Amino acid sequence: MKILFKNARILTMKDENIIFANLVVKDNRIAYIGKDYSKYAPFDREIECNGNLLMPGFKNAHAHSAMVFLRGKADDVPLQEWLFDVVFPHEANLQPKDVYYLNKVAYLEYLTSGITAVFDHYFYPSEMARASEEFGMRSTFLVMPDETKYPMQYISDVYHKYNDNKDSLVRVRIGFHAEYTADDATFDRAMRIVEELKSPFFTHISETEKEVRECIERHGMEPAKYIYEKGLFKYGGGAYHCVHFTDEEARIFKENGLYVVTCPCSNAKLASGVAPLMKYYGMGMNIAMGTDGPASNNGLDMFKEMYLAASLNKLECKDAKAIPAFEFLKMATVNSAKAMGLDEADVLEEGKLADIIMIDLTQPNMQPLNNIVTNLVYSGNKQNVVLTMIDGKILYENGKFFLKENLEDIYRNAQIVTDRLERDTKNKK
Amino acid sequence: MKILFKNARILTMKDENIIFANLVVKDNRIAYIGKDYSKYAPFDREIECNGNLLMPGFKNAHAHSAMVFLRGKADDVPLQEWLFDVVFPHEANLQPKDVYYLNKVAYLEYLTSGITAVFDHYFYPSEMARASEEFGMRSTFLVMPDETKYPMQYISDVYHKYNDNKDSLVRVRIGFHAEYTADDATFDRAMRIVEELKSPFFTHISETEKEVRECIERHGMEPAKYIYEKGLFKYGGGAYHCVHFTDEEARIFKENGLYVVTCPCSNAKLASGVAPLMKYYGMGMNIAMGTDGPASNNGLDMFKEMYLAASLNKLECKDAKAIPAFEFLKMATVNSAKAMGLDEADVLEEGKLADIIMIDLTQPNMQPLNNIVTNLVYSGNKQNVVLTMIDGKILYENGKFFLKENLEDIYRNAQIVTDRLERDTKNKK
Repeated sequence: MKILFKNARILTMKDENIIFANLVVKDNRIAYIGKDYSKYAPFDREIECNGNLLMPGFKNAHAHSAMVFLRGKADDVPLQEWLFDVVFPHEANLQPKDVYYLNKVAYLEYLTSGITAVFDHYFYPSEMARASEEFGMRSTFLVMPDETKYPMQYISDVYHKYNDNKDSLVRVRIGFHAEYTADDATFDRAMRIVEELKSPFFTHISETEKEVRECIERHGMEPAKYIYEKGLFKYGGGAYHCVHFTDEEARIFKENGLYVVTCPCSNAKLASGVAPLMKYYGMGMNIAMGTDGPASNNGLDMFKEMYLAASLNKLECKDAKAIPAFEFLKMATVNSAKAMGLDEADVLEEGKLADIIMIDLTQPNMQPLNNIVTNLVYSGNKQNVVLTMIDGKILYENGKFFLKENLEDIYRNAQIVTDRLERDTKNKK
Repeated sequence: MKILFKNARILTMKDENIIFANLVVKDNRIAYIGKDYSKYAPFDREIECNGNLLMPGFKNAHAHSAMVFLRGKADDVPLQEWLFDVVFPHEANLQPKDVYYLNKVAYLEYLTSGITAVFDHYFYPSEMARASEEFGMRSTFLVMPDETKYPMQYISDVYHKYNDNKDSLVRVRIGFHAEYTADDATFDRAMRIVEELKSPFFTHISETEKEVRECIERHGMEPAKYIYEKGLFKYGGGAYHCVHFTDEEARIFKENGLYVVTCPCSNAKLASGVAPLMKYYGMGMNIAMGTDGPASNNGLDMFKEMYLAASLNKLECKDAKAIPAFEFLKMATVNSAKAMGLDEADVLEEGKLADIIMIDLTQPNMQPLNNIVTNLVYSGNKQNVVLTMIDGKILYENGKFFLKENLEDIYRNAQIVTDRLERDTKNKK
């Protein structure tokens, strides 16, 4: 299968420059970027870009995709209350197949937002993998060392099954929810599996002040330091949120090349705080970006994240200069790809995976074309995403989905699950 | 001309309820909302809504539409520097007709965002009115008592020409840029014209701490208090931004029914601060909402404003409960309409003006349909706007514009103006 994108502006994300060129996709990879595409002819499809922009798809480096069933169910509630009174009681009724059905609704939203890969943190890895592969969504997900749900051998099998298969859309990492929900036995199991698989480790850290305070009470130190000292970051990884890091924790992350995955919209909506990205950026830390789940954000949209990250940091520093716009684009694409182990899907370059989006520059919010990069961050919108290609396949184009399954079935199945979870949770009360 | 919207969910914005009904538009007004539309048949067009949502269009209560020419020209610069080094030098080269061409680019963006009316604060009222009427955009704009550009008789003529014509899309109010750019003579002229026309008065107030500090140095009091004591609010009105109000200023606004027009995205991007909406809301103040201009925001999108207003207030109060989602919808529709003198375009009701948008609930960011109101505020996006009707005319539908002029001409004319302004400003340096 060969697809030609003709007459495009291309933001490769290797740097800030935008080039005018053509781009050839062969099977699932970028075969060529340049002026003369003749030696790749004929093509199965030629897409006239008319000067619209091609760029790498956004990588959503933190999400709980299946939580779409809770969207709108508990807005305007603080994190701890939201978690313990709403989320956990509902999740207690989750069945494995629910995740398979729910994830697909989030995947649809990713396509409309130009998100081509998601770092998912949720239950039932086999169901997540099945959803991902059937749908065509690239995903990395965490497997959690929970003894009852996932025995050690299962984790090891899942890890190798996907990570050893170069062609799979799925990658696996090890992690658990958070220090405050992990007992000593969980820490031990996590350490053993990290060591066995030499896997990067990811978890929620420093999302709220309360969590940090309580970790200090329990362990005499802040959570990032505690988890680091326990050895869980021995093979790299990182943490979601990182809102309340001490200087020492920031240094630990910097020195060990760990990823801060910032989720500004969720942190704002749950009133958790603002991650000090200006400081992290100044220290040269690895900053990736995610949406968090649809129950705490609630939109799965990296344009919203970039805008909020940029503007909140200007506000916090009382400095409209703060971090340059291009850096937020990097967080949302290249850096997130690296955090997710997707080094082959980070930039647009010959030989890289064809995870590409097209941005309509003829929509009024991108006009006049004074500065495309700042326009993407400050006036860009998911409405501008007119094409989303994952692994060489166009799954979304001009507002329409091109999937094996139809939209109505995906929604109906998710609604059935949502209604059942609501019923089961009420009945238990 | 009669249009039937069949099988819609309708959020009238009179309250939070969503009803299932049909809606009939006759000429430029809503003729009927209910189950049995047969007595209005036949229709020129029947639109099957399939359960999608009709609601009042958003009203953008503060903008400088013509400033699209500066979008992306000076991002990441603080307010005072941005104003004095970038904005004012460019604006010195503006010609009246430029505003006519530039406004139309912003109007296009309003249509894509479901914004059906704009409160414009810029130069050359006749050109703004011409653009507005030709395009079909409803707008209220300020005329500024600037002696050189607009003599008193001209202001009075413009004021009556539009406000006395019930059918016009244009409404006029009196205002000036800000206390810090208005000398005593301007204050005097403003006071005389406000008194003569009995017009509400609007201006920028308390956008930055610097502005407040300098007003105290000049006049011994904060700007809202100063302008109030000068008598300019005698016939109502309000102010844009209101980020740094004292309690006394908030009380003055509350007691006189004046409108706070909050612009959270602009205030964040320029690092000006966060307006304390929680406090204003608690006091029962009138809060309207605007995007500010495309050079400081940069998108013209009320979904973005609602999300930012909501999340910043949760953050500021460290309280995820803060203001209920529905209140932000009210600010962006009903309250803004009232601030702009558009009492006939505030809610969906028989007899009201037909300024209506349709929201696609079948897009994944609105699924599952647990709570449509919170979805609109927290996961809603301008991508969901599939139809924008102003004054009974459908100007935007399914991503396409239905205008007298074509898109390419609007963009080309705006680009010519943008390029000329850039050239003229460079040459003068």
